[in-house]
Amino acid sequence: MTSEHFETRIRDSFAKQGFMTTLGATLERVARGEIEIALRPHPGIMQQHGFVHGGVVGAIADSAAGYAALSVLPADTGVLTAEYKINLLAPATGERIVARGRVVKAGRTLTLAQADVFALNGGQEKLIAHLTATMMTVKGRDGVSD
Amino acid sequence: MTSEHFETRIRDSFAKQGFMTTLGATLERVARGEIEIALRPHPGIMQQHGFVHGGVVGAIADSAAGYAALSVLPADTGVLTAEYKINLLAPATGERIVARGRVVKAGRTLTLAQADVFALNGGQEKLIAHLTATMMTVKGRDGVSD
Amino acid sequence: MTSEHFETRIRDSFAKQGFMTTLGATLERVARGEIEIALRPHPGIMQQHGFVHGGVVGAIADSAAGYAALSVLPADTGVLTAEYKINLLAPATGERIVARGRVVKAGRTLTLAQADVFALNGGQEKLIAHLTATMMTVKGRDGVSD
Amino acid sequence: MTSEHFETRIRDSFAKQGFMTTLGATLERVARGEIEIALRPHPGIMQQHGFVHGGVVGAIADSAAGYAALSVLPADTGVLTAEYKINLLAPATGERIVARGRVVKAGRTLTLAQADVFALNGGQEKLIAHLTATMMTVKGRDGVSD
Repeated sequence: MTSEHFETRIRDSFAKQGFMTTLGATLERVARGEIEIALRPHPGIMQQHGFVHGGVVGAIADSAAGYAALSVLPADTGVLTAEYKINLLAPATGERIVARGRVVKAGRTLTLAQADVFALNGGQEKLIAHLTATMMTVKGRDGVSD
Repeated sequence: MTSEHFETRIRDSFAKQGFMTTLGATLERVARGEIEIALRPHPGIMQQHGFVHGGVVGAIADSAAGYAALSVLPADTGVLTAEYKINLLAPATGERIVARGRVVKAGRTLTLAQADVFALNGGQEKLIAHLTATMMTVKGRDGVSD
Repeated sequence: MTSEHFETRIRDSFAKQGFMTTLGATLERVARGEIEIALRPHPGIMQQHGFVHGGVVGAIADSAAGYAALSVLPADTGVLTAEYKINLLAPATGERIVARGRVVKAGRTLTLAQADVFALNGGQEKLIAHLTATMMTVKGRDGVSD
Repeated sequence: MTSEHFETRIRDSFAKQGFMTTLGATLERVARGEIEIALRPHPGIMQQHGFVHGGVVGAIADSAAGYAALSVLPADTGVLTAEYKINLLAPATGERIVARGRVVKAGRTLTLAQADVFALNGGQEKLIAHLTATMMTVKGRDGVSD
């Protein structure tokens, strides 16, 4: 699979995620083993204290980690998140929230990926969350090819 | 705090969560140490394969676990999720998705809570995810009283 | 596989674990999907404050969860821990420490198992830790048949 | 607290851990925010397949992460592991097993630390496990000052 191919594949897959559209999340960077997803805080994604909901932070971090895994796997495989764990380090608030996913170790069946999530404010970045995820490679399963 | 008080407090807090409204999530049950949150799958919360996004499953599970923790804590405290870990066991698809949170152990600083998430289909329940969360008790912090 | 067979298989495997001997851990109960491992605190397994080391608590909890998974899988398969997460809820101190593992959901490739760890003191049990583990089924891999 | 002070404090604390002696683990490096603990595989720390037990890998990783946290905290505080999560990526086998802990974010109440564990063989390092841990700062609690 050439670089161009995995990028097209990931961009097509991302565009099919209704939930990313709902969040207002955009795919900012697609490189082999490294993905960046960003969004701007708005009331529809907040929790009761006016911060972006931890579930939203988890969702973009999980997606960034998942696409990072997909970017290093063979073209005929898909990935499903088996589990993820996220530490929420500071309130998610700011001009933009950015999740950066990367692959730690790609395996035949399981791939370990991580994502750091940053809040951007006045040109400053602050680490607000860290996710570790186990991605399961799936092959030939109906409907899971990306 | 009487039973009535914690229920009112949790319902008020839930109503303030813009993200729960966005998801179409509803608070189905509020009891001391046990909370149920449900939603109906719709395109705006799906991932690329047409299943409810793992981040959405994580969000309602985290909220159910967090409110379960809040329901057992003193009235002048709030909770923040320090970390959560979720195992996604089967695709989130069906007529309804229901997260049931409960407290495993309440502590002064940290409370361990869990949530099981079920897919409901034709009267059948299927376990699709399991979350474990560490909730941090906060007191006297501006804006975090629920 | 009959009940007798999985019990023999698990007892044989446990006996081969040099680390369980080092810890002084014993296999107390072997039932389908439920395993109990116990030990008595002694200086050689303690951390700096005189409590049983969190890594020891994790080890018996992981083993209890892993054998619980093995007890429900076909006879020609083995299990490897892909990941575990443990919440340490109270200091591990007392007359005995007991880990009780159980299967939450058995899958073809991955099995979710849990373990609760209790400290026993004067006839009282206290929950001191909770573990969630993802076990990977392995088949036909040299050296991994239990 | 000067550099020398935190190093002395950590070396003294490590020496008090009976379990580290049992494992044959040694403190290889003590720097601010970075700790290295190593051991040589031997039968007394193995699981049934002849690999170092996942619980042992978890124990040295947890200790490396915990001391990394301690090295950046004020002198009158101690740390307790609230929870850790470890992904076991490859069998722990080789001439030496080395855990390298570091602080990701230090907070007043909670500190996020990580550890990577490597197997060393013939001059080659292989990543075999990755741990994320939440450390709780404790102050003025009897018996927990390191």
